[in-house]
Amino acid sequence: MIQDFILGLIHQGRLAEARNWLSQMNVVDIAYWLEELDDDKILVLFRLLPKDMAAEVFSHFSKEQQEFIIESIADREIKSIIDELFLDDTVDLIEEMPANVVKKVLRNTSEERRKLINQLLKYPDYSAGSLMTIEFVDLKKEMRVDQALESIRKNGVDKETINICYVIDSSRKLEGIIPIRKLILSDPSDILKDIMETNFISVHTLDDQEQVANIFRKYDLLAVPVVDNEERLVGIITIDDIVDIIEEENTEDFHKMAAIQPSDEEYLKTKVTALAKHRVIWLLVLMISATFTGTIIQRFEEVLQSVVVLTYFIPMIMDTGGNAGAQSATLIIRGLALDEISLSDIFKVIWKELKVSILVGISLAVINFARIIIMRQASAIIAATVSVSMLFTVILAKVIGGSLPILAKKIGLDPAIMAGPLITTIVDALALLAYFSIASWVLGL
Amino acid sequence: MIQDFILGLIHQGRLAEARNWLSQMNVVDIAYWLEELDDDKILVLFRLLPKDMAAEVFSHFSKEQQEFIIESIADREIKSIIDELFLDDTVDLIEEMPANVVKKVLRNTSEERRKLINQLLKYPDYSAGSLMTIEFVDLKKEMRVDQALESIRKNGVDKETINICYVIDSSRKLEGIIPIRKLILSDPSDILKDIMETNFISVHTLDDQEQVANIFRKYDLLAVPVVDNEERLVGIITIDDIVDIIEEENTEDFHKMAAIQPSDEEYLKTKVTALAKHRVIWLLVLMISATFTGTIIQRFEEVLQSVVVLTYFIPMIMDTGGNAGAQSATLIIRGLALDEISLSDIFKVIWKELKVSILVGISLAVINFARIIIMRQASAIIAATVSVSMLFTVILAKVIGGSLPILAKKIGLDPAIMAGPLITTIVDALALLAYFSIASWVLGL
Repeated sequence: MIQDFILGLIHQGRLAEARNWLSQMNVVDIAYWLEELDDDKILVLFRLLPKDMAAEVFSHFSKEQQEFIIESIADREIKSIIDELFLDDTVDLIEEMPANVVKKVLRNTSEERRKLINQLLKYPDYSAGSLMTIEFVDLKKEMRVDQALESIRKNGVDKETINICYVIDSSRKLEGIIPIRKLILSDPSDILKDIMETNFISVHTLDDQEQVANIFRKYDLLAVPVVDNEERLVGIITIDDIVDIIEEENTEDFHKMAAIQPSDEEYLKTKVTALAKHRVIWLLVLMISATFTGTIIQRFEEVLQSVVVLTYFIPMIMDTGGNAGAQSATLIIRGLALDEISLSDIFKVIWKELKVSILVGISLAVINFARIIIMRQASAIIAATVSVSMLFTVILAKVIGGSLPILAKKIGLDPAIMAGPLITTIVDALALLAYFSIASWVLGL
Repeated sequence: MIQDFILGLIHQGRLAEARNWLSQMNVVDIAYWLEELDDDKILVLFRLLPKDMAAEVFSHFSKEQQEFIIESIADREIKSIIDELFLDDTVDLIEEMPANVVKKVLRNTSEERRKLINQLLKYPDYSAGSLMTIEFVDLKKEMRVDQALESIRKNGVDKETINICYVIDSSRKLEGIIPIRKLILSDPSDILKDIMETNFISVHTLDDQEQVANIFRKYDLLAVPVVDNEERLVGIITIDDIVDIIEEENTEDFHKMAAIQPSDEEYLKTKVTALAKHRVIWLLVLMISATFTGTIIQRFEEVLQSVVVLTYFIPMIMDTGGNAGAQSATLIIRGLALDEISLSDIFKVIWKELKVSILVGISLAVINFARIIIMRQASAIIAATVSVSMLFTVILAKVIGGSLPILAKKIGLDPAIMAGPLITTIVDALALLAYFSIASWVLGL
């Protein structure tokens, strides 16, 4: 492996050669590799990297590794990294590091960049403003194509953010966009005004990141300009950041739907106490809520004692109700997240869930009836009671599971909390209530 | 609204004006708008669109709308759309349409394009080959920068896929990549060989789409070249397609984790019978499995009859076990999907879950004990029995929930099926077994 080979060269003191091989490697691979090494080896290798690569490798490090590097290297070295780092990455760094590290970073940042960083830090978390970078190419609409290309050559740093150029007027209001490919394919004497796209999509600094991600998805964008309240261009958001946001939002939904407090940290890197803390609160709430279901059993104690066989079917009815409700809730939560279902669809959803639940419920009830009779677990009258309760439970579960996420969103809650665990707790109580009521009535107890 | 204004113009027969306004609109907005109109209005508006916009609007239509359009318009019109459509969109269309529509599409496709389409159709579903487009810019390494730009101007169509150019040798083997921005920023007399990046990432035609998406995420890519077994460049995949793949994969996981057969279709557009079919099979499997838990209750019938109060706590123990297991399973399934946890981490995971579950379990047990005593639901000995069972249940649930997804992946199953519903069913049985065993022993029954 090239990694072992490079370590060998370093061991023999052949640093120039090692540096040469290192610079052939992909920066992401280097970052992953260094994360696995001992602290002293990391520092030797990191210092060997060419300046521009060092900044890129640094930006792919984990939080812990970034902290270690900044704490371990000299001010002069930090300065050269921070100078090469994208501004939005620097802002992320400052937001995530402890105070002493932030101090060391800011001490080695130029006055001008510090000002820009402070501006970016003012945007609320999860807003478009906090996501954007202010490194982009802006052009004037009176420019000719060759002038524009000349201006890009002069000012444009080598980065993805120049794939699309932005045309602004004298008050920095955004007037149009031009993909750089269009500049290359156009006649050098064309005027930007005539070739720019004016029906572009933009977002506002305070728009929520989930909204921004949905816009990227809907319009198949690679970058989107961010404007302030006066429609002045203040930054751009690129799709690589959006891919991360999409995964973060999905992870958050997965966690919430499993009744876990969401966290950005990787499982294996999270401390046991933190993991326990993220889980125990919801478990506690749900445990206490489940005692309500116990109370229902208590209320129907006599029914259960006179027909003990009814007890055997409690787990099946509870589990099936929970599962049926979780199915509906998941479909609706996902539909809401992808903007495929809107709040006004609530009656359509309820009607649809009603029909689906009748179909599913009848199938399960029939099979269940046959199964009880065949296995001779109970008489036909008990089997019928269990099966009718099953049908009711599935209908209840699916209508509740389908509507609660929409209602949650209506009152400003995250629909993802109305998922399996909470739905199960609610449906359990109702299902057992239905089961015992039907049983008392049918069996005349 | 501009939409109403355009409809007004059409109503008055001012078609040229309507067309003019239409061409100012965003193609995605037009597609969404037309989806809501009556069939005859859709056709009028669609025919008014300039040729290149029509193809773009068409590519943003839903499957149903695309089918309707192709069935309704003349061969000549179809030809002009297909000519403008990206090749990968045409392939998607052919894969999704019914036979008669496919016939109409292929009849209006040039011989040359038909050959290319047939090649692309040969790649397996969900492979890199089936995702890629073959429209990209390839350059030779001996070219000078100005020659390269000239060649792009001559051959490069106006599309996102020219943001990165690919340098190949005489046998079409991929030797390097050059972002177009680098071409612009370089000296015109530079030779491509000297400025191209050679430590690029590529994927193989048969790589799975989930793997490709993970590579995009890991390396922050905007596009990736696809090579065949001989390392020859055959296509590229761009990030806009990857964003869709990521959401599809996430949706699939959400569905599987809620015990639903995954489907690509939007909830509101799916038929009731299809929704019922996707849900009933797993519900049935889980319902039958839950009878096992019933059997455990049956086995401990005498214990329950002599101490009826034990029955009240069945729902709470079952629910908490299910929730605790679902939490662990979700964290691990998500970690596996994001490549943050690998198969070899199984013992680390089990050890971590053991520690977390002891912390969480003890908290829940203590609170539960206090609650039962305070609410005077049962004696201290019963409260202790319930609380110890709770601790056991949480430990069992978390260790099982944490390890089953990894084991599933080890034997080639999708870890997502080892989520809440299945874990709940397994844990329920074990939890009640533990509960009744502890109760019989403590109470000396």
